[in-house]
Amino acid sequence: MLRGKFLTIEGTEGVGKSTNLAFVRDWLQAKGIDVVVTREPGGTPLAEEIRVLLLAKREESVDETAELLLVFAARAQHIAQVIKPALARGAWVLSDRFTDATYAYQGGGRGLSKETITQLEALVQGDLRPDLTLILDIDVELGLNRARQRGELDRFESETLSFFERVRGAYRARVEDAPNRYAVVDAGQPLVQVQADIDLVLSRLLTY
Amino acid sequence: MLRGKFLTIEGTEGVGKSTNLAFVRDWLQAKGIDVVVTREPGGTPLAEEIRVLLLAKREESVDETAELLLVFAARAQHIAQVIKPALARGAWVLSDRFTDATYAYQGGGRGLSKETITQLEALVQGDLRPDLTLILDIDVELGLNRARQRGELDRFESETLSFFERVRGAYRARVEDAPNRYAVVDAGQPLVQVQADIDLVLSRLLTY
Repeated sequence: MLRGKFLTIEGTEGVGKSTNLAFVRDWLQAKGIDVVVTREPGGTPLAEEIRVLLLAKREESVDETAELLLVFAARAQHIAQVIKPALARGAWVLSDRFTDATYAYQGGGRGLSKETITQLEALVQGDLRPDLTLILDIDVELGLNRARQRGELDRFESETLSFFERVRGAYRARVEDAPNRYAVVDAGQPLVQVQADIDLVLSRLLTY
Repeated sequence: MLRGKFLTIEGTEGVGKSTNLAFVRDWLQAKGIDVVVTREPGGTPLAEEIRVLLLAKREESVDETAELLLVFAARAQHIAQVIKPALARGAWVLSDRFTDATYAYQGGGRGLSKETITQLEALVQGDLRPDLTLILDIDVELGLNRARQRGELDRFESETLSFFERVRGAYRARVEDAPNRYAVVDAGQPLVQVQADIDLVLSRLLTY
């Protein structure tokens, strides 16, 4: 059965996701791989509309379960419209965030139970999981300082330091639970070293 | 413990929900009851934004699980911001649609499994259920003809006759499963008779 590989990139704020996502895309394309680059929440018109609702700062306090369900609603649409069709035709999918971000932000950050997230993951994804998740890891304060130089902060970026410490901790716990599915790269290094590490990870993935 | 009653009104298109919701509200207010009138999907700014996403006609085909999760996301927000606070202060809540509509439209209409809906209901509502649900029942074709005189149809109103037959059937199945929680009123009767029936239902509820 023809099926492309499904790669995701994760990390806390200011970790260099966009730059390194472009690096991974270019690397794969240079090998002649058909890559669909996408992101979460988002990736389809409806899912992008849901993203706008999720990121907007609002007077109304957002219920944590409502937030979680919005994330998975966008994901269901993204999988049906973009991810599954791309993988089925043999393309690779490279997504800026996926369900690990839900375990990290809504689980670790907001404190929602892992069991609830697992239940929704099963409902929405069936057995679809990334083949490899690249986690860009950085000291939370260093990352936030970087991110905050970008200007206006969204509802998540405006969270506290301790929120992001919990997010980072949740990413690490994910890696401990299933080390084979993750590659953790130290994003506090100079960019050239970060990308040398990513190059190594991708080379191993292609020979595997 | 002080707690108001939670009433919901349900039915397929063109059944006279708005008119009869106003009748119920006026009836309760005439008895001196503090009534919060609300609706689903919606009832808070964020939940109303989700409603707009749900009802919009779009080129993109909407994944059924995405639709279901959007409905429950709006509901989680509605419960946290409006329904629970109102009931807790002793007010009654009167909602134009609630979870029975999910069993009817996403379950009966779209064919999503009852188990999935039940799982999300438990996650979002805990043990919150309406004290009484008024189901306005009408011949589907008659109702649709009425509804279509109102003008522009939304994404749900544009569904087929067989979709609404399944919705109506799912409402009926809900009543069979828990007859004590429902009052079914024949909405095909002249309005004065419909409202005489509703009057009887509400009188029984108050003396109970």
